[in-house]
Amino acid sequence: MTIRVGIFGASGYTGGELVRLLARHPEVKVAFVTSERHAGRPLAEVFPHLGVLPELTCHPLTDMTLSSECDVAFCALPHLTSMDAVPELLQRGMRVVDLSADFRLQDAGLFQQWYGAPHRASELLREAVYGLPELQQQRERIRSARLIANPGCYPTSILLALAPLLREQAIELDGMVIDSKSGVSGAGRSVAQGSLFCEVSEGFRAYKVTGHRHIPEIEQELGRVAGRPVCIRFTPHLLPQSRGILSTCYVRPRCALTESQWRDMLIDCYRDEPFVRVVPAGQFPSTHQVRGSNYAALGVALDERTGWLMVLSAIDNLVKGAAGQAVQNMNLMLGVEESAGLEQVPLFP
Amino acid sequence: MTIRVGIFGASGYTGGELVRLLARHPEVKVAFVTSERHAGRPLAEVFPHLGVLPELTCHPLTDMTLSSECDVAFCALPHLTSMDAVPELLQRGMRVVDLSADFRLQDAGLFQQWYGAPHRASELLREAVYGLPELQQQRERIRSARLIANPGCYPTSILLALAPLLREQAIELDGMVIDSKSGVSGAGRSVAQGSLFCEVSEGFRAYKVTGHRHIPEIEQELGRVAGRPVCIRFTPHLLPQSRGILSTCYVRPRCALTESQWRDMLIDCYRDEPFVRVVPAGQFPSTHQVRGSNYAALGVALDERTGWLMVLSAIDNLVKGAAGQAVQNMNLMLGVEESAGLEQVPLFP
Amino acid sequence: MTIRVGIFGASGYTGGELVRLLARHPEVKVAFVTSERHAGRPLAEVFPHLGVLPELTCHPLTDMTLSSECDVAFCALPHLTSMDAVPELLQRGMRVVDLSADFRLQDAGLFQQWYGAPHRASELLREAVYGLPELQQQRERIRSARLIANPGCYPTSILLALAPLLREQAIELDGMVIDSKSGVSGAGRSVAQGSLFCEVSEGFRAYKVTGHRHIPEIEQELGRVAGRPVCIRFTPHLLPQSRGILSTCYVRPRCALTESQWRDMLIDCYRDEPFVRVVPAGQFPSTHQVRGSNYAALGVALDERTGWLMVLSAIDNLVKGAAGQAVQNMNLMLGVEESAGLEQVPLFP
Amino acid sequence: MTIRVGIFGASGYTGGELVRLLARHPEVKVAFVTSERHAGRPLAEVFPHLGVLPELTCHPLTDMTLSSECDVAFCALPHLTSMDAVPELLQRGMRVVDLSADFRLQDAGLFQQWYGAPHRASELLREAVYGLPELQQQRERIRSARLIANPGCYPTSILLALAPLLREQAIELDGMVIDSKSGVSGAGRSVAQGSLFCEVSEGFRAYKVTGHRHIPEIEQELGRVAGRPVCIRFTPHLLPQSRGILSTCYVRPRCALTESQWRDMLIDCYRDEPFVRVVPAGQFPSTHQVRGSNYAALGVALDERTGWLMVLSAIDNLVKGAAGQAVQNMNLMLGVEESAGLEQVPLFP
Repeated sequence: MTIRVGIFGASGYTGGELVRLLARHPEVKVAFVTSERHAGRPLAEVFPHLGVLPELTCHPLTDMTLSSECDVAFCALPHLTSMDAVPELLQRGMRVVDLSADFRLQDAGLFQQWYGAPHRASELLREAVYGLPELQQQRERIRSARLIANPGCYPTSILLALAPLLREQAIELDGMVIDSKSGVSGAGRSVAQGSLFCEVSEGFRAYKVTGHRHIPEIEQELGRVAGRPVCIRFTPHLLPQSRGILSTCYVRPRCALTESQWRDMLIDCYRDEPFVRVVPAGQFPSTHQVRGSNYAALGVALDERTGWLMVLSAIDNLVKGAAGQAVQNMNLMLGVEESAGLEQVPLFP
Repeated sequence: MTIRVGIFGASGYTGGELVRLLARHPEVKVAFVTSERHAGRPLAEVFPHLGVLPELTCHPLTDMTLSSECDVAFCALPHLTSMDAVPELLQRGMRVVDLSADFRLQDAGLFQQWYGAPHRASELLREAVYGLPELQQQRERIRSARLIANPGCYPTSILLALAPLLREQAIELDGMVIDSKSGVSGAGRSVAQGSLFCEVSEGFRAYKVTGHRHIPEIEQELGRVAGRPVCIRFTPHLLPQSRGILSTCYVRPRCALTESQWRDMLIDCYRDEPFVRVVPAGQFPSTHQVRGSNYAALGVALDERTGWLMVLSAIDNLVKGAAGQAVQNMNLMLGVEESAGLEQVPLFP
Repeated sequence: MTIRVGIFGASGYTGGELVRLLARHPEVKVAFVTSERHAGRPLAEVFPHLGVLPELTCHPLTDMTLSSECDVAFCALPHLTSMDAVPELLQRGMRVVDLSADFRLQDAGLFQQWYGAPHRASELLREAVYGLPELQQQRERIRSARLIANPGCYPTSILLALAPLLREQAIELDGMVIDSKSGVSGAGRSVAQGSLFCEVSEGFRAYKVTGHRHIPEIEQELGRVAGRPVCIRFTPHLLPQSRGILSTCYVRPRCALTESQWRDMLIDCYRDEPFVRVVPAGQFPSTHQVRGSNYAALGVALDERTGWLMVLSAIDNLVKGAAGQAVQNMNLMLGVEESAGLEQVPLFP
Repeated sequence: MTIRVGIFGASGYTGGELVRLLARHPEVKVAFVTSERHAGRPLAEVFPHLGVLPELTCHPLTDMTLSSECDVAFCALPHLTSMDAVPELLQRGMRVVDLSADFRLQDAGLFQQWYGAPHRASELLREAVYGLPELQQQRERIRSARLIANPGCYPTSILLALAPLLREQAIELDGMVIDSKSGVSGAGRSVAQGSLFCEVSEGFRAYKVTGHRHIPEIEQELGRVAGRPVCIRFTPHLLPQSRGILSTCYVRPRCALTESQWRDMLIDCYRDEPFVRVVPAGQFPSTHQVRGSNYAALGVALDERTGWLMVLSAIDNLVKGAAGQAVQNMNLMLGVEESAGLEQVPLFP
């Protein structure tokens, strides 16, 4: 039986990536795609690299929200827009994977504080399942969910690195420093001066220092794992490259383990995970090791001089950090093999 | 039945790309890989992005040439090295796809002239089949071949662009100008100052102006299609990017067609081809449209002012220009679906 | 005596480059800058790298056109806008270097044909001097000009390569093929999807094939040198880098010279030029050799097999292709040392 | 009076940069350059972008160490090589700016521990002056020095950011986290697989996590300013760009200041410095703001949620982080205007 999917908001990079992955998914048929701005145009005009696929035409959002029939809806709409579309889709009986931030924070007040607007579908926040399958107990919750809040890209990279250590109560909760670096595709395809080639190439800078909206999401999920509130220092930076996130996490151990034992703790935790790989001693993760794929690469280093532990984490922000994780969640929801459609080997160089 | 393949010379970019593609090929098992320089080391140390695959260890070339058993051998060895390995492999009953230049030129004298050394396996030149399936009559010859000379990257991009027009005798044979641009991966993974990041990034230049070794290969195959000798002006350039070739071909029509009719000539020619796509009017091929995939993108423009025709052609030099085409040839040789293992959608951005 | 200059349209890349160069010019004071969009803001907010200079504030265009007093006005306004500002500036007694295309074509009809609008200051076309000092007789005309039409970036790279050969009547006028490649800064700082980092990086494509607006400018000036009409085949391409143009020109000799003699012809022609350098035999120009500087690098290759000659030409499109050439023209107009303020050594890597 | 300088080790990126800067220095004549590997060749073959300068030929190191006469010697030799050349140069009466690490650590034992070999000129360690003029009291010491230990690139970026805060005893000494990112030119021009374009472009990774050799240098100088030992957590990363370092420093305030007051502390400290600029509130330093120039850009952010302070610092690793700082030191030593030859405006884009 083929799963029929609709992609709402297909003209952004995340939307294009969903089409790339789902078009080759063995159990899926992309039934339709929407784009307000490009309604009526072939998707292959919007994304020439998708010209190798059978033709898809962009539909207006509203038409499809109201009329379409599919098994799963992927919402790759902007924040604050998604919350208006999702209730309608659920009501029509679809299961929804929402890639916006709208259903990630469980506390509507916190949402309003960070996103600057009241939540208009807060009754769904309790039901929405945070879709990071590798987090303890989440996989089971995802399987039976109707609505998945697909995690943010930075949170995915950071939670995969730190959740195992917090769960084991192996590190101090306070004083964690997280320095993250992201490729430009994280800013989306909307035209902004700061995303121009000349403004990015051969340059590097921090942005939204102290105030990035992924902070409450990271703290919420780290806190859930730790069983206590967690407060992080988080600085995102913009890399002169298209894809990839690397997070460098500085934490203080609560127990005297060797670097090798810290590595084993991560290896044990992710032993059965299809998409998380701990790199061997002497290596460190690079975004090269995950590009175009749903894999995450983790590495650890113990600083013998200071006693601090560094955990490094690399993902492709558009795949494990967005579209790939969304497909992984869909697979779990529909009882399909978890890695179906996601077995791309990383592309290097 | 699973096809067992060996990859000789797996530590270069082409070798790594063969592993990437073949590891996910539904009918193939990679039986072994060789690397002289890295013999004894896990391939995942040589190529960390391949760490997500089941473990492969690099073997010494000689051991495997003499002892291994597999159905197909891919030779991604350097020019002048391959010609020593291939006869032994054939003798042991394997079918061989050779990715070096050693068996592409049918004339051993011409080979010596351009490659600076006598051919040591010239008895095989007549048997070797030039592995560009889209060239007229080649697909049938490939199916029954024992030894495939896998085409060069520049020749692939250029032959796909011009062969249909020459076959139709629609353009003048003399005065063709071909200006090609390639990503740096075409220079391979060997360490050379000219391939350093700082020497390539934010820079652009021509190289081997008037004397690139792909010239006789291009002229041989264009001449075969045209039925007469062909002489081209060819200049390769080095792009500040990893993957991709774009060739801009300037030719003079012999008949008064409209731009649309020229485009239709290409569309007709490639109607049944799984990997060649002619882009619509108003678009031009970009290397973005083929990255990481086995597709070629072609475009045409008729210069009304001068009467000249431009044909533009984009491929990924490591896929359709090397490893992907090699897999396509293997598929044909072994009677597997031609596109098996090659259905990756281009990766963008 | 200090030269007071005004820069009209300072918020584009060319405007920023004018400020960079003129701020360190020993004889110049930048009296004011204008920007419609950023009127009232410090220029250092618009261009943070200019924060190291004494403060400049952006003024509205109209105010300054009407009221300002300076010796020289640089107009870095968009095409079709400049023609409205220039007459007013001239009337107020300033000398003007116009960096737009508005005064480059001497034929108002041709202008309308290529730029899609009638010329509103066509009475100035006869007076405007095409500001390429290295073209025969232009230097003297520039010295006494009131209005300079600063050449386009592609035309500069191409005219420097071909004018000496045409002047010597050493090459055929018909059948010239010019394949040019430019960095993205040539598209300016205006936000457009095609200029986004993700749409440019790791990609390469042609654009405006057969119809780029620099064609009539190139043909006008080549024709003037040759004394007869010239028709070129010209294709521009977009490089994944910020700065630099490389033009590869394919021409047919009318006389049997050796490669070395062709090189000498260029060397002789440019012997006394401060900014044009012919690279030695065995080397070819790279955009690396000119980045950030006002230099042009030229190279030649004779294709012995075909008899054709290749001339390659590299400039920095924002300097010799725009702002640097404008300063060079100003120096000539005002009797200052021609290379004043323009002695930056190219920046590499 | 012209200062005659010799550049020992001119074929690396730092050497090339010294030539670029010194060739346009108003008080300097580059008397000779050395390169072992390229002895006898024109420097313009080694660095084509220097072809615009009057011709320089590479001499063998030994010849020039023994025989040459100049006022100042710049040593851009590899670590462990410089310590053998410097004593001879001093003995011959030259003043020396050494750009290697050989004279930066005052403790010969510490040197041996981090650089893996005993110091062979340890008698000079006490005399050598650490050449960061912006550090308290260093400018005066530099003026009268015979031997300057030119600081490392990472240390320069970090000391400029943190020294003022330590001097004021405004931050805690323990728990400082410094996350630095550098362009590839920091690895020099020697050919290594890790520096190839394909291995760097579109990738990002940490390296030498916990063990980079700049750690003891940073701690030595921070400790000197603080008056007590300092221990840092430092992780360097490799950026896919040629030039630029950005350091993100996470520290804990010892006093309750506002973000604006922290900024003012830096502004006050650097008020009279020609090359250090604190960016305005709301902006953050980018490597774009300093490329090709001797400027440093600093920014601060106070994280109200956690109480931590972030200080960000951007320099061009080849200029303020190497060659530019060396020229600044020479200017001070010889009583020339401190900014002579160093007034290049940053190049953007």
